[in-house]
Amino acid sequence: MGQEPRVVIIGGGFGGLWAAKALANKPVRVTLIDRKNHHVFQPLLYQVATAVLSPGEIAQPIRRILAKAKNIEVILGDAVEIDEEQCRVVLNDGSQVAYDKLIVAAGARHSYFGNDAWEQHAPGLKTIEDAVEIRRRVLLAFEIAEREAYITGYRKPLNFVVIGGGATGVELAGAIADIARKALANDFKLIDTRQARVMLFEGSDRILGTFHEELSASAKEQLESLGVEVHLNGFVTGVGDGRIRVGDREIECDVVLWATGVAASPLGGKLGAETDRAGRVLVSPDLSIPGRENIFVIGDMAYVEQANGEPVPGVSPAAMQMGELAAENILADIDGKPRRDFVYVNKGTMATIGRKKAIAEIGGWRFRGFVAWLMWLFLHVVFLIGFRNKLAVMADWFWAYMTRERSARLIVGDADELREGK
Amino acid sequence: MGQEPRVVIIGGGFGGLWAAKALANKPVRVTLIDRKNHHVFQPLLYQVATAVLSPGEIAQPIRRILAKAKNIEVILGDAVEIDEEQCRVVLNDGSQVAYDKLIVAAGARHSYFGNDAWEQHAPGLKTIEDAVEIRRRVLLAFEIAEREAYITGYRKPLNFVVIGGGATGVELAGAIADIARKALANDFKLIDTRQARVMLFEGSDRILGTFHEELSASAKEQLESLGVEVHLNGFVTGVGDGRIRVGDREIECDVVLWATGVAASPLGGKLGAETDRAGRVLVSPDLSIPGRENIFVIGDMAYVEQANGEPVPGVSPAAMQMGELAAENILADIDGKPRRDFVYVNKGTMATIGRKKAIAEIGGWRFRGFVAWLMWLFLHVVFLIGFRNKLAVMADWFWAYMTRERSARLIVGDADELREGK
Repeated sequence: MGQEPRVVIIGGGFGGLWAAKALANKPVRVTLIDRKNHHVFQPLLYQVATAVLSPGEIAQPIRRILAKAKNIEVILGDAVEIDEEQCRVVLNDGSQVAYDKLIVAAGARHSYFGNDAWEQHAPGLKTIEDAVEIRRRVLLAFEIAEREAYITGYRKPLNFVVIGGGATGVELAGAIADIARKALANDFKLIDTRQARVMLFEGSDRILGTFHEELSASAKEQLESLGVEVHLNGFVTGVGDGRIRVGDREIECDVVLWATGVAASPLGGKLGAETDRAGRVLVSPDLSIPGRENIFVIGDMAYVEQANGEPVPGVSPAAMQMGELAAENILADIDGKPRRDFVYVNKGTMATIGRKKAIAEIGGWRFRGFVAWLMWLFLHVVFLIGFRNKLAVMADWFWAYMTRERSARLIVGDADELREGK
Repeated sequence: MGQEPRVVIIGGGFGGLWAAKALANKPVRVTLIDRKNHHVFQPLLYQVATAVLSPGEIAQPIRRILAKAKNIEVILGDAVEIDEEQCRVVLNDGSQVAYDKLIVAAGARHSYFGNDAWEQHAPGLKTIEDAVEIRRRVLLAFEIAEREAYITGYRKPLNFVVIGGGATGVELAGAIADIARKALANDFKLIDTRQARVMLFEGSDRILGTFHEELSASAKEQLESLGVEVHLNGFVTGVGDGRIRVGDREIECDVVLWATGVAASPLGGKLGAETDRAGRVLVSPDLSIPGRENIFVIGDMAYVEQANGEPVPGVSPAAMQMGELAAENILADIDGKPRRDFVYVNKGTMATIGRKKAIAEIGGWRFRGFVAWLMWLFLHVVFLIGFRNKLAVMADWFWAYMTRERSARLIVGDADELREGK
């Protein structure tokens, strides 16, 4: 085994994990490095942020998932540099991990269009920590309002703002509206949580712009039927403490969430390859870097075009497919066979909006409302990793559906923020 | 309703919550103030700290529990002063809550015997945040060891230290031994997690000192059969970074947990009443403060003696009983009836040690091992608040029992600590 090639994978998201699975028990020695000990099922992260699911239900320890792969070692670590000459990954404590083949799958974070100061006022949703922070802010807003009503005798209704009308923004807005209108309505005695405003701002002229126009329009209607105010062409030009600026309007708000703008991991910029404006690496068709055939870049970090000239979207099925192809191409190298080019297979896309509300586009077919929602439910349980998690999530969904209660309504962290009134 | 007396309860633990329940829909206006939005089922907190249960499974929003009590208002707030002249509770933002009757049930924290600097090295277990932090430290220790073994080729076995041989210390030590020996053993490929040492230090000559000597001895044996090293008369005299001092011995350790020493909430010292060394308020037999009949102090904050001269123990059944009596005495005042004195009814005590291992003392009967463990399981599910939580906890226990896996193995927080090697 000493002579088997060393494959290092940076990142345990969908891209990195699927690459690792494809290399399990193959004639390579694999090391997967991630900053977290867990893989997160990102499509359900918004449900943690909105108190339907608990963090543990959508996260699994990476080493648990790969426990049966004898040739894969998992390390908790933060890769900060790649020494392409020496073929080593440098971790943030200075220690080094040598590779023969490298798969970089470190994903993306939010981008605030150069306004990093906005982040403290408007958190985004990429990690479990983000989701717990959003949950804390949303639930705390109601608690603070109730307290203000108790102490002063009055509290104006809450304003929630979600910036960005992509899938995450739509999911968050719909779920917050549901919390305010149903889940919390009976628990607060002084404020009427149902009067809370939920505003979604989208800079372009439609939400869920990657779908067919007809579905975008349907999604907007479904969202509005939940009580969300959808503001199209609402380009946000400023985010401050308790207020945002849209064009030249100022809007007061209690909670602002950021669901737009994506920037690839800064590791991409350190590879000496060309990157696009979002920091994605322009990879060759076989997903390797031009001039460095032993380094692959996949998932949200990679820019690669489909046959129709459109870039492959930053969605989990694309990351999984890239992970599998990078692994396959590494095994092809070993066998002396030619590499394959990446072809994205679009099995359909869907976005959920709320209880019994969703849209889906599969092949040429378009679905909306209850049918699309059932499809969404089914697929997300099927793809969730771990038998136990599937059961737990189904139980929580069933409970939430029957009772309209939320089971994970925990504010973690101290109430110290109350002092500053936030 | 405007003329009904205002009862303010500080704290939503077992004492405050049971007082509130006893006042539900009675002719009083009740305000319950807590720093957290949730009530924690403390007896199972160690299972969150050891990755068996998720935080949400043992915590319930206080306002949800009391949603049906029309006369009870719940506020998130941090009570910092009590103005006994004006009959007002002062919150940390300066706002005030007026009362006619006050129930102080703010509980206790750990005490480090005046060595507050020890806390950063040896966290205690009182809140959900504490539990998540302990879980993070325990799981991270294994990850760091695996990483060290990967980078340097060697890692000496891990040392876990638990200080204090009461119920919490015994539960933590037993559960960590089980994690190391069973739950994680197959997931780590470079280190042998089973070689980890788990050491329990108890300053006195037996663990679980509130039980009969025979049961203490049995508990020690059961704990040792799990692989825990029990050090009696092991009084800890120093806690530093990566080491503790016991007598004049220094012991290296990777994780230290603090499970001894209790100090009542500092609110007790602000009441102008006499307190004992642990900061507990010496209350009258009716649980009010001598000279201030409208202020009750209950739960871990109160010092009151049983008929045999022993102080009532700081356990949840005692807190619940005190909460109920304080409420009853308030209602008696309203009805012009005499107050009752507090009589602690000891329905039995039990401590769990590990899988199929426990001790219990009920009436004159003593139980140990499997029978005691079954009794413990049964009672803790019965008393857990919330139908949904009972089901979820039973499912997790069943899963853990059958597979010996842990379902909540999430390290939350950044891996930045890796930089400092902790």
